[in-house]
Amino acid sequence: MAGNTFGEAFKVTTWGESHGLALGAVIDGCPPHIELSQEYIQREMERRRPGRSKLTSPRKEPDEVLILSGVFEGKTTGTPISLIIYNKDVDSSKYQPLKEAFRPGHADYTYFKKYGIRDYRGGGRAAARETVARVAAGAVAKKVLEKEGINVFAYTLELGGIRAQVMDFQEINKNELFCPDRKAAKAMEKRIVEVKRERDSIGGIVEIVAKGCPAGLGEPVFDKLDAELAKALMSVGAVKGVEIGSGFAAARMLGSVNNDQITPQGFRSNNAGGILGGISNGDDIIVRVAVKPIPSIGIEQDTVDVHMKPTTISVKGRHDVSAIPRIVPVCEAMVRLVLVDHLLRQRTLGLRDDSEE
Amino acid sequence: MAGNTFGEAFKVTTWGESHGLALGAVIDGCPPHIELSQEYIQREMERRRPGRSKLTSPRKEPDEVLILSGVFEGKTTGTPISLIIYNKDVDSSKYQPLKEAFRPGHADYTYFKKYGIRDYRGGGRAAARETVARVAAGAVAKKVLEKEGINVFAYTLELGGIRAQVMDFQEINKNELFCPDRKAAKAMEKRIVEVKRERDSIGGIVEIVAKGCPAGLGEPVFDKLDAELAKALMSVGAVKGVEIGSGFAAARMLGSVNNDQITPQGFRSNNAGGILGGISNGDDIIVRVAVKPIPSIGIEQDTVDVHMKPTTISVKGRHDVSAIPRIVPVCEAMVRLVLVDHLLRQRTLGLRDDSEE
Amino acid sequence: MAGNTFGEAFKVTTWGESHGLALGAVIDGCPPHIELSQEYIQREMERRRPGRSKLTSPRKEPDEVLILSGVFEGKTTGTPISLIIYNKDVDSSKYQPLKEAFRPGHADYTYFKKYGIRDYRGGGRAAARETVARVAAGAVAKKVLEKEGINVFAYTLELGGIRAQVMDFQEINKNELFCPDRKAAKAMEKRIVEVKRERDSIGGIVEIVAKGCPAGLGEPVFDKLDAELAKALMSVGAVKGVEIGSGFAAARMLGSVNNDQITPQGFRSNNAGGILGGISNGDDIIVRVAVKPIPSIGIEQDTVDVHMKPTTISVKGRHDVSAIPRIVPVCEAMVRLVLVDHLLRQRTLGLRDDSEE
Amino acid sequence: MAGNTFGEAFKVTTWGESHGLALGAVIDGCPPHIELSQEYIQREMERRRPGRSKLTSPRKEPDEVLILSGVFEGKTTGTPISLIIYNKDVDSSKYQPLKEAFRPGHADYTYFKKYGIRDYRGGGRAAARETVARVAAGAVAKKVLEKEGINVFAYTLELGGIRAQVMDFQEINKNELFCPDRKAAKAMEKRIVEVKRERDSIGGIVEIVAKGCPAGLGEPVFDKLDAELAKALMSVGAVKGVEIGSGFAAARMLGSVNNDQITPQGFRSNNAGGILGGISNGDDIIVRVAVKPIPSIGIEQDTVDVHMKPTTISVKGRHDVSAIPRIVPVCEAMVRLVLVDHLLRQRTLGLRDDSEE
Repeated sequence: MAGNTFGEAFKVTTWGESHGLALGAVIDGCPPHIELSQEYIQREMERRRPGRSKLTSPRKEPDEVLILSGVFEGKTTGTPISLIIYNKDVDSSKYQPLKEAFRPGHADYTYFKKYGIRDYRGGGRAAARETVARVAAGAVAKKVLEKEGINVFAYTLELGGIRAQVMDFQEINKNELFCPDRKAAKAMEKRIVEVKRERDSIGGIVEIVAKGCPAGLGEPVFDKLDAELAKALMSVGAVKGVEIGSGFAAARMLGSVNNDQITPQGFRSNNAGGILGGISNGDDIIVRVAVKPIPSIGIEQDTVDVHMKPTTISVKGRHDVSAIPRIVPVCEAMVRLVLVDHLLRQRTLGLRDDSEE
Repeated sequence: MAGNTFGEAFKVTTWGESHGLALGAVIDGCPPHIELSQEYIQREMERRRPGRSKLTSPRKEPDEVLILSGVFEGKTTGTPISLIIYNKDVDSSKYQPLKEAFRPGHADYTYFKKYGIRDYRGGGRAAARETVARVAAGAVAKKVLEKEGINVFAYTLELGGIRAQVMDFQEINKNELFCPDRKAAKAMEKRIVEVKRERDSIGGIVEIVAKGCPAGLGEPVFDKLDAELAKALMSVGAVKGVEIGSGFAAARMLGSVNNDQITPQGFRSNNAGGILGGISNGDDIIVRVAVKPIPSIGIEQDTVDVHMKPTTISVKGRHDVSAIPRIVPVCEAMVRLVLVDHLLRQRTLGLRDDSEE
Repeated sequence: MAGNTFGEAFKVTTWGESHGLALGAVIDGCPPHIELSQEYIQREMERRRPGRSKLTSPRKEPDEVLILSGVFEGKTTGTPISLIIYNKDVDSSKYQPLKEAFRPGHADYTYFKKYGIRDYRGGGRAAARETVARVAAGAVAKKVLEKEGINVFAYTLELGGIRAQVMDFQEINKNELFCPDRKAAKAMEKRIVEVKRERDSIGGIVEIVAKGCPAGLGEPVFDKLDAELAKALMSVGAVKGVEIGSGFAAARMLGSVNNDQITPQGFRSNNAGGILGGISNGDDIIVRVAVKPIPSIGIEQDTVDVHMKPTTISVKGRHDVSAIPRIVPVCEAMVRLVLVDHLLRQRTLGLRDDSEE
Repeated sequence: MAGNTFGEAFKVTTWGESHGLALGAVIDGCPPHIELSQEYIQREMERRRPGRSKLTSPRKEPDEVLILSGVFEGKTTGTPISLIIYNKDVDSSKYQPLKEAFRPGHADYTYFKKYGIRDYRGGGRAAARETVARVAAGAVAKKVLEKEGINVFAYTLELGGIRAQVMDFQEINKNELFCPDRKAAKAMEKRIVEVKRERDSIGGIVEIVAKGCPAGLGEPVFDKLDAELAKALMSVGAVKGVEIGSGFAAARMLGSVNNDQITPQGFRSNNAGGILGGISNGDDIIVRVAVKPIPSIGIEQDTVDVHMKPTTISVKGRHDVSAIPRIVPVCEAMVRLVLVDHLLRQRTLGLRDDSEE
């Protein structure tokens, strides 16, 4: 009801505010006998950590994860896994000037309208920092998926209008922007520096791929796999659009072109993005998300205060220029949470041992 | 778990196959004292009915809805509302040739992989006919929303590459394509006839607008209003993409452009599409969906049979050339189901009587 | 939220009022490949049917069940199974005198307080007739459980203070009271006739046994198997108490007596009622429910009308003297729904094929 | 699915093992503007704390609760409230001898069967210590209920066969057994000392009362208020039976006696226990639970080890002789969680401001 839980069989509940004591996730429904250590989760957290490079927020969060329950002798037990990340470098003082004014493009105004409360300290539950709990939970999901041979990864397809032209997946983890095109990555970095100088921000497009997903995942008619992916990804702060396979381009295609013809060797194309009728078809699952420019900018903007009086604002906190690249591991985490949930849901049918697929 | 239920507070469960005896919806959680009659729901059903015009499938379904429970003396009672639509014009014989072959672009293959069953009769639960239950349930949601002053409508923004240039909302119900641009509608109709002649199919874009939605609807962090809308719309058969407000265009914008500055009179622009931080901001909610071309085409295509042997297929059933216009009222219904659910969920906070907003 | 759905993996939603057009159940999550026919469900319905004997209500309901979806060529498909039972012998005229007065012991007053509506026609959703949908859904659950070797049955342990002394399970279906003690059954029948003559009503105790349930079903800590059974059974109209194994007697036992010592051959006693720590232990599951006397009695009683003015009432409709025996198959159905739900839930752990246990 | 979440609108997820690092609860759906402090929750925790008196376990747990999120400037914000209680006095060494043997009456055997794992350290998730998180969450629920004038309290009605004869509610918090009858309390204390000397354990009966609950709470047909209470209470470790109002005694009553006749001043009796047709009627809600004797006893008992080889066991850990009195505040907490959940659920109907009732 109140929206802080995701999934049905592999159920993740997250909690915590950007400038509170800690953030965390409770995972209920993780199967037992999965190897899990703090060190492993820690490594997964590194990719979204702030202060990691000159391109991201200078906030220095070690993002140290503790496993508080659900693991015994290095393996999951089947009981809830509680993960906690304490906030260390909390500096709310910079938010004092924002105490009254609503930042344009932020959730300040809507949270105030929803709850009748103004928690001005850095966005509270609506801040990007919330995603730290998603990534921690996604790391657990990754372990379960690996046992089934499912591999999820994401990359920056476009940033500030610059699009990757080369798809070299080996390159992704070699540049700070998680871009599969080294040359494009350079151009993107340059663009980020420019925009930062202008005290503005930029958006981009992230593509997520899942390889090795068996056919048959996804539930008709409302919990289709693509519907669940759309929800999962649209629930990430800066995302304004989601498309599967040919996506919006399909709107201008003929059926004879968009249909993926089938051969004994598999599908001849993958406009479906690996999903037909809401159910995985065994091909790569391909999803893209539109990431809006970060709303916190140094440029002065018109706004109102809590009394709806006009004022102006120029955000000075420690902010990224773009949600990319830090949103990339968050997108991976959300796709993993969807896939692991549907993997477990499919098991209820009792058709066969999933591990044999 | 099995995915045939939508919503938490206003919960809709649908059932029924395209070529079975009937389809239906059970609504649990509809507040009492809402006026509801079969005649009213019937009128709402008309817009998605097949055989309505030369542009749509010749299948003649009166789509007669019966209210089986939950209404007493013309008003809802608070107990479950059961709606049933009997299938009348069921002709499975044309599907006999498809008994073995999987239709490209359809759910045939994936349902077979999921359940280990081949129900060849017109797509079963995956057929577009399933949406009849969504529209019936959406009609009930509409009544609840109207009491709160919320008005949802949708229209064809683009079809086969032809885009509406004029936004005359009065025009929408005057042409068969629900297009707000009369001239574009003519061009679209012409395009449909051409494509039909070529035994091919085409896609398009539908835009949905919700006016009068109060600020404060949507739940952090996973059940954000935009996340729920994305799921709701992506769960509709032919939809391959969803975007909110500036959507994919935001990926190429600067923050200073995409941010909607705020004045005492309201937001200066609406790139947010009425949703900030996943919560409605009181402005118009604007969503667009990409509709793929219908996969059933007369042109011969390669495929395989249930034994994975190669074969070819040329679909001859009674099919539309485009999911548009019949998908338009389905999109309206899904947006209504999301909004009514979140309207009721917001009430649990007990902040004020929603009807006073 | 609104409470008309039961179960998570095997999810049953029921709808319909006692004096409306029909009642029904939608089952979402039933695995595919389960044999299912209307004739089979019909036979299961017979046991709770009114007008079956001189001991039960003269209302003549054939209780004919139709399967509207989810079954193809005699087997379940994995999609929602919609079951409908039309009301035939609806005679609301007898309820006219009750239009204003609240019947003591009934839900009339509380439904009025909850919804602000007075549907006086025989209790609406609160009437015992609602259980017809439970029994239909339970019949489907029975089929799934049978495949796993789980057998659930119930019987009358006590009625009007007369307790069965002999546990001859072969006898249960040989007398109209589903009593395992033929002699006690005779005494119970005699007691029913007496009470009927006095225009009063009586209660009793029903015991439900599940044999063949594998160890491991039930979820810590809130969805324990005994907690779910308690909810399932307490949700049946006339039930006022539920106990597992030694139940209330355990409150007066010593630990050394109540503990079931364990041997390689199994448990030495079954005070646990087959459930330890909320999880089945492989032994027989044993549950008892207290059934209150039916509140509809011919004896005049004090009450108030909808304006809270004092009045008297003497109920004249067609009513049973005791909820027993018709509640017996309802209890079986509810226990089956719990077990099948947890059987499917357990599968998500992926530990082994349940059918091999 | 995995059972560690309770409630729908006021949703509580608990986690943590008896001998792990910590235990906790996440509350999602608590309305904003509720005053909440650590000190307040701490005071509520005191009643179930071990080592509180000579009658309870010598384990010294300060049970210090930290509020990690969801509270800002002393009030709830509407976002998830994360509560954590670190384990301090963890001494697993005493459990070493139990590493292989299953303790009779405990969940050792069933957890092993369910998950295929043997976590021998004091019962893990099945230990009574798990209830610390319930009590912490219940304290938050108490605050919401107080605003609506709803008051829940529980007491020891019977222990080791000794029953309270006097109902002096002022007395409850004056003796260590939470018994409303001072004389009976003395006798109970004496009985506990005796049983302890015999290295055995005893059970009893707890009664819970809710005063000030408005009519109208509870949802037909499966989520009836009594059904939810039964589940909530049966989910507490040692509980083997639950009854509402006249409960099992109703099984031997005549309808004319059990029915609560209605007058303009209210109900003439309360055999219903405040609930009719699963919905609260405005009268006191009265529930009783049967508490089994604690299974950990010093007396030697037969059992098997993980290889199903026979062995004997004599439990030496730090254990209470009876789950009473420490279970009393746990029962209060569970009833509060049910009531607050249904209070919020009822608000979705939008009938009126609940606070005016």
